[in-house]
Amino acid sequence: MGIRLYTLVGSDAARPFSPHVWKVVMALNHKGLAYEEVPTRFTEVPSIEDGKSKTVPVLNDNGKVVIDSFLIATYLEKTYPDRPSLFGGAGGEAAARLIESWSQTQVHPVISRIALLDIWTMLDPKDQAYFRPQREARFGMTLEAMADTRDEQAVLLRERLEPLRVTLRHQPFIGGSVPLFGDYILFGALQWLRVVSTLWPLEKDDPVSDWFERCLDLYQGLGRAVPARISAS
Amino acid sequence: MGIRLYTLVGSDAARPFSPHVWKVVMALNHKGLAYEEVPTRFTEVPSIEDGKSKTVPVLNDNGKVVIDSFLIATYLEKTYPDRPSLFGGAGGEAAARLIESWSQTQVHPVISRIALLDIWTMLDPKDQAYFRPQREARFGMTLEAMADTRDEQAVLLRERLEPLRVTLRHQPFIGGSVPLFGDYILFGALQWLRVVSTLWPLEKDDPVSDWFERCLDLYQGLGRAVPARISAS
Repeated sequence: MGIRLYTLVGSDAARPFSPHVWKVVMALNHKGLAYEEVPTRFTEVPSIEDGKSKTVPVLNDNGKVVIDSFLIATYLEKTYPDRPSLFGGAGGEAAARLIESWSQTQVHPVISRIALLDIWTMLDPKDQAYFRPQREARFGMTLEAMADTRDEQAVLLRERLEPLRVTLRHQPFIGGSVPLFGDYILFGALQWLRVVSTLWPLEKDDPVSDWFERCLDLYQGLGRAVPARISAS
Repeated sequence: MGIRLYTLVGSDAARPFSPHVWKVVMALNHKGLAYEEVPTRFTEVPSIEDGKSKTVPVLNDNGKVVIDSFLIATYLEKTYPDRPSLFGGAGGEAAARLIESWSQTQVHPVISRIALLDIWTMLDPKDQAYFRPQREARFGMTLEAMADTRDEQAVLLRERLEPLRVTLRHQPFIGGSVPLFGDYILFGALQWLRVVSTLWPLEKDDPVSDWFERCLDLYQGLGRAVPARISAS
């Protein structure tokens, strides 16, 4: 049966936007593995693969089901060791956890505030009815109140990306001379924003923009194949 | 002649405090290399090894002079490949640059505001006369004004360490099951604070405190051999 990857979409099945799924899409291409994507709506996620996960990504590799983007990456590394490494060794795999923790705690909350209302507008009515109260409860405010702060959040996002900006003085990718899973972790966050947001916060002369463009070029422009929601990027 | 490491001290030559020197001290011990420390005052740094560097650490390995803590680590990794790896592979070495960039841009500025006045009190008059105007110009305020904000900075420091805290849910060290140079980067920052500060901002039940204690235990308690300035840690 091959490899099946459940992705997250709104009304348009051709616009997958989950940051965590994008990490896995890049990882599968990095490994040169063929796979089939199964576009999934928010309210369909709990029934994927007999309800094994409440969130995407979910990967089914010839019957073996793996959930969680990081665990999928380590699964792929272990299962396909002869293909290009996602981590560049044990030290890289361990450090990727810090990169993930940085992205999740510093970058994702800011992107959420910029983009959640925009995501809501891309969903089917059934998903909208699930998404709005769930996210509003988590952030303690309405989606509209979040969107009202998005210009300040855009400034904050640029500030929060400073560690990546400084890293890029030394090397073209977080992985060094080549992209590794650490790059895909941050790429997933910004690709999520690119696919859903009506505001693009990065400036063209920002080294982070150059790095993001390099990531969009990977694997025959795979990330670019899904158009940005607005043309600024 | 062996390996010589120039360290940074105040009036008391037995209390080296530079975060960047501590990274190298840990790296040399990780590699199991013998070395001699040369305690150096701020105003003596420009004359080290014929003025090759304006900052410490400076390493002289049998006549080969290397400056900058990260470059020293990569030099040691390349020069002593048969000893325990500092990076755990090429991916770990590349990711360490992001860890360094995160520490430098997010953690160091906060520690500076907490500790610079405390450092000043540890210096000889000649070093004090150099240190105060240099640091006050860099931060745009007096050392006393910085110290007045240190309680808020302590809260901010705990927040800024959240990526490390989340990482520690998965593994005991940034390097995974063993400490690597990424650990020493953050350890250097907190050891700097421990050796100089009259305020200790970490709480005892913080997982970051547990990790820091594990790092202090390494190499026969090497970091602990220099007492904390206050007994809270």
